[in-house]
Amino acid sequence: MENITYTLSLCQFSSSFDRAVSRAKAGDFVRRAAADGAAVVALPEMWNCPYENRYFREYAEPADGATVEFMARLAEECGVYLVGGSIPELVGDKLRNSSFIFAKDGSQLGSFSKMHMFDVDIEGGVTFKESATLEAGTSLTVVDTEFGKIGVAICYDARFPDMFRAMADAGAHLVVMPASFSPVTGAAHWDILMKSRAVDEQIYIAACSPAPDPDAPYQAFGHSCIVDPWGSFVTYAGTDETIASGVIDLGYLAKVRAQVPVTEQRRYDFYHIKER
Amino acid sequence: MENITYTLSLCQFSSSFDRAVSRAKAGDFVRRAAADGAAVVALPEMWNCPYENRYFREYAEPADGATVEFMARLAEECGVYLVGGSIPELVGDKLRNSSFIFAKDGSQLGSFSKMHMFDVDIEGGVTFKESATLEAGTSLTVVDTEFGKIGVAICYDARFPDMFRAMADAGAHLVVMPASFSPVTGAAHWDILMKSRAVDEQIYIAACSPAPDPDAPYQAFGHSCIVDPWGSFVTYAGTDETIASGVIDLGYLAKVRAQVPVTEQRRYDFYHIKER
Repeated sequence: MENITYTLSLCQFSSSFDRAVSRAKAGDFVRRAAADGAAVVALPEMWNCPYENRYFREYAEPADGATVEFMARLAEECGVYLVGGSIPELVGDKLRNSSFIFAKDGSQLGSFSKMHMFDVDIEGGVTFKESATLEAGTSLTVVDTEFGKIGVAICYDARFPDMFRAMADAGAHLVVMPASFSPVTGAAHWDILMKSRAVDEQIYIAACSPAPDPDAPYQAFGHSCIVDPWGSFVTYAGTDETIASGVIDLGYLAKVRAQVPVTEQRRYDFYHIKER
Repeated sequence: MENITYTLSLCQFSSSFDRAVSRAKAGDFVRRAAADGAAVVALPEMWNCPYENRYFREYAEPADGATVEFMARLAEECGVYLVGGSIPELVGDKLRNSSFIFAKDGSQLGSFSKMHMFDVDIEGGVTFKESATLEAGTSLTVVDTEFGKIGVAICYDARFPDMFRAMADAGAHLVVMPASFSPVTGAAHWDILMKSRAVDEQIYIAACSPAPDPDAPYQAFGHSCIVDPWGSFVTYAGTDETIASGVIDLGYLAKVRAQVPVTEQRRYDFYHIKER
């Protein structure tokens, strides 16, 4: 376990109003990442859909729809584990913001639906009420790979550390996070949140953003990144379309945990306030 | 509650081998902070003692000792709430790293003993085994003041977010943290930890470090700071002896919580992994 290293690549691109264009882009980025040696590849949040509530239903597909099938075949063709960003998923007549995860043979390892809805109202910033359109997920996802366990969270989930504790406790060495922060919350919190999730749980965190697109209705923050268990950026993208890659090193993770053994030092029995 | 603002001052100074010198320094810093308008003042970790395991017993005092009495009278004289950093406390024949907290009339509001021992072994960095000398505390502390509830944590406790969740849930709007990070862990994690504790719980975090002293056996990181609930530094000291002050604004805290209402959006029922 401790000698495992592999390359993780984050595909930072902008989605199109044209489904075929988005799909062609995803294919191109994943093939390039695989050709460059990636063993695990991630796509951005809502990569096949304009990122705005009013488009989610129009672009939604069921879990056995064409986009999921496309991702399965892409993973198989490229021989990579694929964390398929997220897409609007049609579940009955409800919509979810869902990530589908595939093994190298194209089989589906699991799926995750964004658990915390982006309902914020920031003065001078962004107002968004995702829960008006989407239904939140109710279960966490950690999948098994030949490299160990990988968890998935989506965007606003980053603000809820309990999720990451649960995934780390379940053995995840990495949480991949398709995430489309806004420019305001991104500038304020992107680096802090990605680093703190990594440092607190001593795991790798990989956040895959769409590239911002001046013509899109919503501007993504960009800056896809991988943070190591010590809290250092392994890779940190700008705002262009790009593939951000880095090595995930389970030996390094084990070393950090041995040097600063917080996971063994927690004192759950005492995390309550005594009445005074 | 929402209109409350007050000035918090962090006294960043280095301790001396001479108890009288350390005490005189503490008195001088607190008096100056109070004269400049501080309503709440904090001292650094182990401010009356050289920061190294072998000195803790020599400098230790019981909870009714001269240093605690000194702090009580200082709070009363200056008319400030005083979070008395920490001192080595003698409890029977055990030692604790303890903070005593005083009201404006000099009465003791509570005390807190560092709950997580600084037992780390970082390659090329710092090796410290605090548990060889100190006994860890077993209860959290949140005290009532006219400005609302204030929690206290000490240094390495910063790596344990559960503590901060518990204090925030108990109503703390601020956690004061006497803290003597090392240069290595400080450079790597000081900013991340202080900001993430503030952003995750949407509270103020105030970390009060000793000033580094080239003649001391252990070099503190310095950089005492206050972080607001949005994750921005209100004040950020360098490494000199200084008083770092900032305004704590409960209206701003309420505004951040209204804009990004994570404390209401947590989904505790679902923070477990489904077996797959």
